[in-house]
Amino acid sequence: MEYETTVDVRFRDIDAMGHVNNAVYATYAEQARANYFVDVLDRELSAVGSVLATITMDYRQPIHIDDGPLTVAIDVPDLGESSIPMEYEVRTADGTVAAEIESVQVAYDREAGESMPLPDDWREAITSYHGL
Amino acid sequence: MEYETTVDVRFRDIDAMGHVNNAVYATYAEQARANYFVDVLDRELSAVGSVLATITMDYRQPIHIDDGPLTVAIDVPDLGESSIPMEYEVRTADGTVAAEIESVQVAYDREAGESMPLPDDWREAITSYHGL
Amino acid sequence: MEYETTVDVRFRDIDAMGHVNNAVYATYAEQARANYFVDVLDRELSAVGSVLATITMDYRQPIHIDDGPLTVAIDVPDLGESSIPMEYEVRTADGTVAAEIESVQVAYDREAGESMPLPDDWREAITSYHGL
Amino acid sequence: MEYETTVDVRFRDIDAMGHVNNAVYATYAEQARANYFVDVLDRELSAVGSVLATITMDYRQPIHIDDGPLTVAIDVPDLGESSIPMEYEVRTADGTVAAEIESVQVAYDREAGESMPLPDDWREAITSYHGL
Repeated sequence: MEYETTVDVRFRDIDAMGHVNNAVYATYAEQARANYFVDVLDRELSAVGSVLATITMDYRQPIHIDDGPLTVAIDVPDLGESSIPMEYEVRTADGTVAAEIESVQVAYDREAGESMPLPDDWREAITSYHGL
Repeated sequence: MEYETTVDVRFRDIDAMGHVNNAVYATYAEQARANYFVDVLDRELSAVGSVLATITMDYRQPIHIDDGPLTVAIDVPDLGESSIPMEYEVRTADGTVAAEIESVQVAYDREAGESMPLPDDWREAITSYHGL
Repeated sequence: MEYETTVDVRFRDIDAMGHVNNAVYATYAEQARANYFVDVLDRELSAVGSVLATITMDYRQPIHIDDGPLTVAIDVPDLGESSIPMEYEVRTADGTVAAEIESVQVAYDREAGESMPLPDDWREAITSYHGL
Repeated sequence: MEYETTVDVRFRDIDAMGHVNNAVYATYAEQARANYFVDVLDRELSAVGSVLATITMDYRQPIHIDDGPLTVAIDVPDLGESSIPMEYEVRTADGTVAAEIESVQVAYDREAGESMPLPDDWREAITSYHGL
């Protein structure tokens, strides 16, 4: 199953070009990820021992102020030893795909300062949610 | 020749994790790109007929409030018919590479609503600057 | 009648202190104002010929990531010749008042580069909405 | 003596109106305040036990992308028992005053969850710096 959440477009998200600034898409993805962690893993993003390792954003269509609320869909195609790859689609209110995004989140032991295996309960919750 | 510019780290760039938020790296890249357009192409980013098509950001090291000013280096390895691929390195004040970023900027005809060939003067300025 | 609208708290709104950054309250007020202009004046904030002249924000309680969605209430106590004073209350999901904000928006003729009297239809819409 | 520091204008600071967004002025003031805490009090803003209680921003002139770097001047007219009132002037590169800002910072004991008297070393450093 794909996870879906909603993100509003703010006036502040728009830049001098008149559409949503490119960096704000990373904030949309982050907000969707934060909602995902609460809904699927039952914990706050900031409390989760993980870091973002990489993100790729492909811009398909500009987003304007009246294109929201946006739907951000997240799929997790598989799980690594320590990493959670995520595939996002950002859709405007009329269903247009405005961006496709991929990121890799890595479980991280802050005290040790290094990556760590995905905790079992995360692995189970994610596997179960997406039917992996 | 590689282009280099400087970007300050703001308190507002830091998030609840205590280091620079992942989306802000896209703003650092954008600011470096804006400076590049002024310095190399002699025009404002918002006046330039171009759009960002894609960006990939690889996070190497967290950036803290006292790690600035950052140096952002930009290299353009080659030019497409309509596109300017850019490779960035974000370095902290002590020279550590905090992130590697790649983007593709596409020349865009706003009135026609489609991409266009790179204007000759852009091509010449970029080719000349980087010795392509 | 008081106008009310809803604003989500984003992970990106939180700063290194662990609560919503002080500047973001101005963005919450702006978003409420933008919603107000659409709902009460039936136009986009960016299309409206007006500028923000002043804003005062009194912080009452910190806002945390799980305190949303916020309600932002706007009251307009009276209208000036060219100006719209606005009083806001930012409330967390449990009804706590997190901030009180006051701003003055001034009708502005961009071509002339100076303030102008409030257009009659704005005055009527606002007066009617708030029962002035 | 007045404290002065420099803040760059970023492309991301500009909004759909084509000039620096109103909320970003609070970020400029915050950045100036953070620099002040490092330069005058020799500590990071996030490490300092203090909170922003109120801020008023009067917008005098719009700031455009090529108006930077900005100078932000801070004066502290006097000190309260627990509070540091600050008066800021935001000036564009050509010396135009773009905004006048006032804020009150309150010394805060996070563990006790209440304001506290200004630490003696802060009081001495600020008094000495501004010749109060």
